[in-house]
Amino acid sequence: MKKAVVLLSGGLDSTTCAAIAKSEGYEIYALTFDYGQRHSKETEYARKVGEMLGVKEHHILRMNFSDIAASALTRNTEIPEDRDMDSDEIPVTYVPARNTIFLSLALAYAETIGTGDIFIGVSQIDYSGYPDCRGEYIEAYEKMANLATKAAVTGECKVTIHTPLINLTKADTIRKGLALGVDYDKTWSCYAGGETPCGHCDSCRLRAAAFKEVLGD
Amino acid sequence: MKKAVVLLSGGLDSTTCAAIAKSEGYEIYALTFDYGQRHSKETEYARKVGEMLGVKEHHILRMNFSDIAASALTRNTEIPEDRDMDSDEIPVTYVPARNTIFLSLALAYAETIGTGDIFIGVSQIDYSGYPDCRGEYIEAYEKMANLATKAAVTGECKVTIHTPLINLTKADTIRKGLALGVDYDKTWSCYAGGETPCGHCDSCRLRAAAFKEVLGD
Repeated sequence: MKKAVVLLSGGLDSTTCAAIAKSEGYEIYALTFDYGQRHSKETEYARKVGEMLGVKEHHILRMNFSDIAASALTRNTEIPEDRDMDSDEIPVTYVPARNTIFLSLALAYAETIGTGDIFIGVSQIDYSGYPDCRGEYIEAYEKMANLATKAAVTGECKVTIHTPLINLTKADTIRKGLALGVDYDKTWSCYAGGETPCGHCDSCRLRAAAFKEVLGD
Repeated sequence: MKKAVVLLSGGLDSTTCAAIAKSEGYEIYALTFDYGQRHSKETEYARKVGEMLGVKEHHILRMNFSDIAASALTRNTEIPEDRDMDSDEIPVTYVPARNTIFLSLALAYAETIGTGDIFIGVSQIDYSGYPDCRGEYIEAYEKMANLATKAAVTGECKVTIHTPLINLTKADTIRKGLALGVDYDKTWSCYAGGETPCGHCDSCRLRAAAFKEVLGD
């Protein structure tokens, strides 16, 4: 069976991405990060999602980089509520080099298990303007990765960064996931991490709007 | 004063690289990794080197990736003694995606302190054949990094990966360091991490041969 490393945060996008990888016949090696986020909801949900999808292996990697990476998600900065999402500004929830760090650890893991296939649930359509969610960035990453590892340079395992959601709207992502039987109640998107989703952060609002589009009021 | 993030392992190369950054007028923000190596000598020495060079900040980031990255340096595999270093084979001391992971965390740190300058002491001349020490790899990394961060894409801080040792032999690196006043007794190169250097791993042998070339018998 072919193997893939899937970056799994326990949110809507990464869960759908993992379900797609599974539907394409990959055995899933999930990788989740506990990186000093303000709350531990994400890793709890990631674990549930991993079980739901029957992953082969699941590593939850602890790595406190809040000291070196300033962000509202890792430090005590307020998370913006009801922000103007049409603005061009990259919000304070941006985490420096996050996907670059995550993909780099996925790359090490992939080489270790003997695969070059890595899945990440980024989209350049409905997103918060983070630069490391764009196709142009992913292409440059893949090019670099193919010069970085022993498996890639010896031709043993060429690296492919799969981004099945890259051109999907959030609503299309949900449609895709529902068709694959994803139970979105097992996912978590809110940045705030209270008992229930706050409903006012970018992540809650993008999710709610998308579900409204898919399911109606 | 201009700032630079310097990857500092406490070895000969990274110490010389940091001394060069300092001589070029950079204020040094050092980053060291405790990544489940078989011994803690490296981080001890990195700390001493940081003090010797008067770094502005020094983060020692703990991140156990031995679970996901198989290597003789992170797992219980024997470290080769007196290996044929003319062989084209990449040795078992290779750590999957190591420089990619280190540079990615350096990238986050650089953005957080407001700089795009990152120094790494790789050389494509006297090395063990690791793919992530080559100029071609570093160029691809820099290109990717300039698409990855908010500071780079907004034009605030272009990313430059400085590799002052890239075309130096180990002996030339030592000459350069001695000229800058580096005390190499404060550095550690051995892979094995015993009380004294083993003298038989690649790292010990490259170091000894270079010192012999510089200082004579």
